[in-house]
Amino acid sequence: MDHISSSSYDVYFEHQAQLELKKLTSHNYYSSYFVLVDENTKQYCLEQFEALTSTSFSYICIEISSGEEYKNIDSCKQVWHILTENNADRKSLLINLGGGVLTDLGGFCAATYKRGIDFVNIPTTLLSMVDAAVGGKTGIDFQGLKNHIGVFCNARMTLVMSSFLETLDQRQINNGMAEMIKHGLIYDEPHFYEVIKDLNAFRKLIARSVYVKHRVVTEDPKEGGLRKILNFGHTLGHAIETYMMEERNKETLFHGEAIGIGMILEAYLSFKLNKLLERDLKLITKSILPLYDKVIFKAEDIKEILKLSLHDKKNKKGKVMFVLLEGIGKASYDIEVEKDFILEAFDYYQKV
Amino acid sequence: MDHISSSSYDVYFEHQAQLELKKLTSHNYYSSYFVLVDENTKQYCLEQFEALTSTSFSYICIEISSGEEYKNIDSCKQVWHILTENNADRKSLLINLGGGVLTDLGGFCAATYKRGIDFVNIPTTLLSMVDAAVGGKTGIDFQGLKNHIGVFCNARMTLVMSSFLETLDQRQINNGMAEMIKHGLIYDEPHFYEVIKDLNAFRKLIARSVYVKHRVVTEDPKEGGLRKILNFGHTLGHAIETYMMEERNKETLFHGEAIGIGMILEAYLSFKLNKLLERDLKLITKSILPLYDKVIFKAEDIKEILKLSLHDKKNKKGKVMFVLLEGIGKASYDIEVEKDFILEAFDYYQKV
Repeated sequence: MDHISSSSYDVYFEHQAQLELKKLTSHNYYSSYFVLVDENTKQYCLEQFEALTSTSFSYICIEISSGEEYKNIDSCKQVWHILTENNADRKSLLINLGGGVLTDLGGFCAATYKRGIDFVNIPTTLLSMVDAAVGGKTGIDFQGLKNHIGVFCNARMTLVMSSFLETLDQRQINNGMAEMIKHGLIYDEPHFYEVIKDLNAFRKLIARSVYVKHRVVTEDPKEGGLRKILNFGHTLGHAIETYMMEERNKETLFHGEAIGIGMILEAYLSFKLNKLLERDLKLITKSILPLYDKVIFKAEDIKEILKLSLHDKKNKKGKVMFVLLEGIGKASYDIEVEKDFILEAFDYYQKV
Repeated sequence: MDHISSSSYDVYFEHQAQLELKKLTSHNYYSSYFVLVDENTKQYCLEQFEALTSTSFSYICIEISSGEEYKNIDSCKQVWHILTENNADRKSLLINLGGGVLTDLGGFCAATYKRGIDFVNIPTTLLSMVDAAVGGKTGIDFQGLKNHIGVFCNARMTLVMSSFLETLDQRQINNGMAEMIKHGLIYDEPHFYEVIKDLNAFRKLIARSVYVKHRVVTEDPKEGGLRKILNFGHTLGHAIETYMMEERNKETLFHGEAIGIGMILEAYLSFKLNKLLERDLKLITKSILPLYDKVIFKAEDIKEILKLSLHDKKNKKGKVMFVLLEGIGKASYDIEVEKDFILEAFDYYQKV
């Protein structure tokens, strides 16, 4: 697969993506070009990016600080400021070169600058390739709540080039594996088995993983129903991620690390409350656990995590709603779960 | 006319609007209700609003400061904060009760909160009834630039009830008249003549004026072409408004007052560069001039205003683009104007 296309966006892979980038930067369709990077992608990716662009390409570089803690309105103000100072108009293009934090934030800035300018995402981490690359979610964190402020707006184009992954270490690769595993679990059983069969063979599975997400969001762009299944592992995972980030004496987790824990917890709930077989719960647990360090949660940690999960965007009328598996490759959504089962799930994770 | 309907929004007028408000607040379709007011609408409109709602209606009031200078990201943070603290979820509704500043800002907050919750606009000024009520533009000012940050997002419903106008003074009514006159000038010749015939009869012309805007934005929701004609008087008008607001020793103008001047200037340009007859230029000038205090612009004022107009969202590649009249009721757009003609237009306005 070298190309996924819908009426509102295109995703190109590898060689095809390189050709598109060359084309995009050699035509003067846009009145001006801006490239958003963070400290990391400026250091590790910008040179490679430039080598792939047309020789005639000129742009203004916007740099923000790296990390989830800068995915906030102040960074947006910084981006809007530089666009404004350089007279970006409605025919300007913003190219987001970075991980999910950067593409989410850059997408939001572009979607709201003069009520919307085009943007192109070039994800540079495995996580952002398989997760943030499609789906039209843009946003920033607010008051400790992830992606609390944002809009649905598709990138004009997403270019997935796995050569950017060469600068990543194993922890960052595993960070992205969580979403690939999730795509298999909720929608594509063979994909799940392929991913866990050989964890080093992930490159050739990226396009398939993006395609799963593409299928789901195309069926339900605004999260009226089916799209919610992408939230598997995220109801508790997001809350865990937020909690660990906010607590001073806790180690901050990567998104995939928190989602990995969330998937084990929610697989347990799926076994208890939905139709997931115990055998499959064990397989899921065994596949995810070795990828990430075990985290110890005390009773007071869990209490705070539950409180945070109440803020999940998918909730209705103050009740926490879950996506649970019916089996590997099949999920159901909008399932209410009692607090006691959640405590039991944490207990399972802790002891396994 | 008691109702304008499109696939994405509804506008109800007068008695019909009252019925819809009662219905909206008596059903429990939404998980929670928030009403956004500013100091003024809290004092002058909230009681009347409450009297029109269902007796079972309960809501959380969000108050922001009145005035264009608070149409900024800090006020948004305040609104998002209160929504968050009160656990507003995706099924919550925000009702914006106020003028254009408030409906623009409230619309933007709703459109971006958890990637979008429903909002209803209840305009309380003539300006917001005929201008901000339809069209899906939301936004805030940024770095002194009007509506620089925002998104296109339609209110679920707009309720126009002219009883709210009873608390307005003549200056505020005249503020709204500018947009009604504009609607006639760009699209609806008979409407223009009706509006200027008896300036006290505006109430019965509100729905017609909204309908003009509705027709234009329905044909071109994202401002690809035709919609630009709504910008007549605004290229220079916006810049004048911004300049007068930012200069400490200048009196701040109402939006309609700045647009009134902008329309005279741009009618002059239409006479010089498009097909507008001198007779019609004189009629337009004579109709608008008595509504607003004359403003004296010095050479350095004009220089700054021209610089600001370069930031207009409708510009392309650094050139200032104008909407000019071909006659009363007909406009053309994307017309480049040399600086000298603009100086001449200011000269005309000054001496007339």
